[in-house]
Amino acid sequence: MSGPQRIVIVGGVAAGPKAAARARRLSPEAEITIVEKGELISYAGCGLPYYISGMVEERRDLMATPIGVLRDPEFFAKVKRITVRNRTEATAIDRESHELEVRDVQTGEVSRLPYDKLILATGADPVEPPVPGKDLGNVLRLKQVEDADAFRELLHNGHCPYVAIIGGGLIGMEMTEAVTECGQAVSVIEMLPQVLTMLDVEMARLVEKHMESHGVKVMVGTRVERIEGEDGTVARVVTNRGEIPAQLVLLSIGIRPSVSLAREAGLLIGFAGGIIVNEYMQTSDPNIYAAGDCAEKFCHVRGTPCFLPLGSVANKEGRVAGSNAVGHTERFPGVSGTACLKVFDWNVGRAGLSAHQARELGIPIETATVSAPDRPHYYPGTKPIILKLVAEKATRRLIGIQGVGAGDVIKRIDVAITAMTAKMTVDDVAHLDLAYAPPYSEAMDVLIHGANILRNKLDGLVRGVTSCELKAALEAQEDLFLLDVRTPDEHDAGSIPGSVLIPLGAVSGRSDEIPRDKRVVIYCKTSLRAYEAVRILEGKGYNNVEILDGGFLAWPH
Amino acid sequence: MSGPQRIVIVGGVAAGPKAAARARRLSPEAEITIVEKGELISYAGCGLPYYISGMVEERRDLMATPIGVLRDPEFFAKVKRITVRNRTEATAIDRESHELEVRDVQTGEVSRLPYDKLILATGADPVEPPVPGKDLGNVLRLKQVEDADAFRELLHNGHCPYVAIIGGGLIGMEMTEAVTECGQAVSVIEMLPQVLTMLDVEMARLVEKHMESHGVKVMVGTRVERIEGEDGTVARVVTNRGEIPAQLVLLSIGIRPSVSLAREAGLLIGFAGGIIVNEYMQTSDPNIYAAGDCAEKFCHVRGTPCFLPLGSVANKEGRVAGSNAVGHTERFPGVSGTACLKVFDWNVGRAGLSAHQARELGIPIETATVSAPDRPHYYPGTKPIILKLVAEKATRRLIGIQGVGAGDVIKRIDVAITAMTAKMTVDDVAHLDLAYAPPYSEAMDVLIHGANILRNKLDGLVRGVTSCELKAALEAQEDLFLLDVRTPDEHDAGSIPGSVLIPLGAVSGRSDEIPRDKRVVIYCKTSLRAYEAVRILEGKGYNNVEILDGGFLAWPH
Repeated sequence: MSGPQRIVIVGGVAAGPKAAARARRLSPEAEITIVEKGELISYAGCGLPYYISGMVEERRDLMATPIGVLRDPEFFAKVKRITVRNRTEATAIDRESHELEVRDVQTGEVSRLPYDKLILATGADPVEPPVPGKDLGNVLRLKQVEDADAFRELLHNGHCPYVAIIGGGLIGMEMTEAVTECGQAVSVIEMLPQVLTMLDVEMARLVEKHMESHGVKVMVGTRVERIEGEDGTVARVVTNRGEIPAQLVLLSIGIRPSVSLAREAGLLIGFAGGIIVNEYMQTSDPNIYAAGDCAEKFCHVRGTPCFLPLGSVANKEGRVAGSNAVGHTERFPGVSGTACLKVFDWNVGRAGLSAHQARELGIPIETATVSAPDRPHYYPGTKPIILKLVAEKATRRLIGIQGVGAGDVIKRIDVAITAMTAKMTVDDVAHLDLAYAPPYSEAMDVLIHGANILRNKLDGLVRGVTSCELKAALEAQEDLFLLDVRTPDEHDAGSIPGSVLIPLGAVSGRSDEIPRDKRVVIYCKTSLRAYEAVRILEGKGYNNVEILDGGFLAWPH
Repeated sequence: MSGPQRIVIVGGVAAGPKAAARARRLSPEAEITIVEKGELISYAGCGLPYYISGMVEERRDLMATPIGVLRDPEFFAKVKRITVRNRTEATAIDRESHELEVRDVQTGEVSRLPYDKLILATGADPVEPPVPGKDLGNVLRLKQVEDADAFRELLHNGHCPYVAIIGGGLIGMEMTEAVTECGQAVSVIEMLPQVLTMLDVEMARLVEKHMESHGVKVMVGTRVERIEGEDGTVARVVTNRGEIPAQLVLLSIGIRPSVSLAREAGLLIGFAGGIIVNEYMQTSDPNIYAAGDCAEKFCHVRGTPCFLPLGSVANKEGRVAGSNAVGHTERFPGVSGTACLKVFDWNVGRAGLSAHQARELGIPIETATVSAPDRPHYYPGTKPIILKLVAEKATRRLIGIQGVGAGDVIKRIDVAITAMTAKMTVDDVAHLDLAYAPPYSEAMDVLIHGANILRNKLDGLVRGVTSCELKAALEAQEDLFLLDVRTPDEHDAGSIPGSVLIPLGAVSGRSDEIPRDKRVVIYCKTSLRAYEAVRILEGKGYNNVEILDGGFLAWPH
């Protein structure tokens, strides 16, 4: 090789610019070129819903540095000595001659860029549902800033009082909040029986209920049959459960890795649809790297490939690809199956495996659900959160967490992610010396409290039933005894139909009212008192008692 | 042993009631007794500063369950079948006969309680400084609710416009905020050269500066010579740096484990002053356990004993002691050297080793300081935080973290604690798949960003100097070239005296203005641009350039 090393990067949004910046810092002499089909580069794609709602006022804010300098091609040229060719589409990779064929989007002119190392950061594309009418006016997808501009204009000035969001995944949920904040009436239409399939069904139910409390119409288990318009513009969405008026529709049934360039060049594509890479982010061609949404992910908790398109992962992978491309060896250990989002004033997150995913993989598990304040109840501004933890029975390892609520869910998710990355057991998690002061947590933090409940379950001290399982049993008129151990005031303010009230302090004395010959499910507000009641009854020889996981706070029905 | 097992617990605040509750849940038949010298039990001692300020309105809030039930002896008797003997002092342990001698505080009557297992949870006591005048009226300590009542009464109704807090540790800092919130003028007097010795000096300086911005007079390196009064009540504090008017004084120079009962019984006491326990929380007498502030702690990051009196640790240790006392084996793995507190609108936390502590232990380390927004700059409500990370050079393990700022410091501290518990390297930390969405973090979270800076330093890509080191060099008139690579506007709004402005984009073209033959220190707002400048200059053959750790944001001088 003569002359400086040539690094060519396809994709200018997240992983691409990160790879370029890292390569530059490690290699002052390399020639680095970013090829981007769109006009704009290095923007915060994850911020688009907040730009659409108007919470982020200026488009420019999404593509400026923290001190307000626009990250445009001139910035990259001047500050980083990186050449950006925007409005330029990569059309083919010639792996023999080490050349990338590109086409100027405006002039159509085709040229070839020689490379020593090529980094693919082509991102992901929205999945198009096979629905008649999807090409009508005001039926939008959300991929880039220009899409957000169109959406924002219609929301704020387009007289679209009814908005339908087709698809209840991450983007659909974030957009639901954004649109509702703008004053429109939103319907979310999801074909599956729940929104956010990254959550177990009873956790998703809590989110659905919260959305409904903000006026959103949530239609799960609903299939879109067609989209109908008037004068070429959408007017309604026709589903198997009736018609929804809609002057604006977002198609957000999912996204998939953009791999056509890689596939046509003969690079291997993985089970989850991404370009296969090794831990150095190298594709099946050692001179070609891939990073970001287009690259296959490996979930180290699950032990399987997965697809989770996130800016955080894209940045990390871009850095690793940029390092390795210039000869500075670095390994990427994979992802944790993490996702989070804000749903109105709730925080929602997950990582690792859900109980549902674990069962699909055939892993014997135990779960615990904890409902608790995020800080001491006496501290002003304390808010509740509900966490569900999943442990592998054989190893007691924490392998999954989900959380919802107005309190600080995400801190606990992040701690659990770190614990899962380190393959900690729930016993390890229960003894973490987490930072404690009343403004931040309870003395026994809710995560530690949850880990202790899970340890108690693994130790056979208590069994539990999820809210959805209990609801199914009640609907099937199973002959069970449902015991509320809260106070009479709490019971009167709302209870699960059919439950019998015996406050905790009276359980021991009135145990003759509690049957020994049928299933007994005990609940209180959070299931802490229910657990005490279980222990009291088991001390009296009962072996038929269990708690409602998460208590009445986690009862979404 | 005939009859049910007898568990006797000394101490009714945190570890004691937790041990009792856990023992009860595991053993329905055990006879469990808590002995407490004071009147009140099971209260949130950590909430006292917030009760004093009035943020927590009612004393009762500190000792009620989340649903408002008072945790008094009747509650323990009725709901948990635990006997509480309050106003009862434990005076001696007869280890031969397995009896605890107790004295009724009101009647003076002495009796003996037989035990099978004894759990000591005697807490900690304020250290009394050897200062004349410390017994004057209105010179208070803060240990229990009654102390807080007295303090609150004086603050709100006592006409005490000037308050002096002697001791700048955790309690002193929390009380400074509480008192300032009530409108009083507060002076903090600390003998050492900084407040909060759990932090490195340049991080503590940032906290001191923040306190000063809230009107607090911070007097570090100041020795109290005597406290003077009028008519038996405090009027002023006389220090080696002058007199401070004060109608109310808090003595908070530290607390130490309450171990006299244990010591007199011949139990071993550790280097850090606590009762020595093994991982089962067993003392040197296998039938006696200790938990909470009175028990010696082992810091698993530091590998040494330590003393950190915290309600969170007390609860965990109490649970472990309660489990083992009734035969359910459980191990406590030690603490992480964690502490955190709120200082006005700043969040402050630390865990593991400070750079100072590591150097005292002779551990070769590298450090990095990162100043960054806690969320994307475009997201409303984003706030800055400053983190300092410490890694062991030989292993690249993260062994310490400190954080200050208005942003969400504590989440990052908790993640780092989990990582340190798992003995993760900074490379592992940099690849954590932390939860990302714009309401919660940057795509590259500030902790990951900090870990990457530290990796760059460990890899020899950049060197840094702390703000205090730079200040010392400037004061010593060391011949160094201080380079500001921010914009002219930023420079004009405030800069380090003597620094030369060359904005980052001009560094490459104007490098002839930058000397090659003397030390060059580069800074910007956060040191990100400074790092780019270092890489540019090193690409031109400079080997004399370094960054100001944390940038101008972390410059407290």
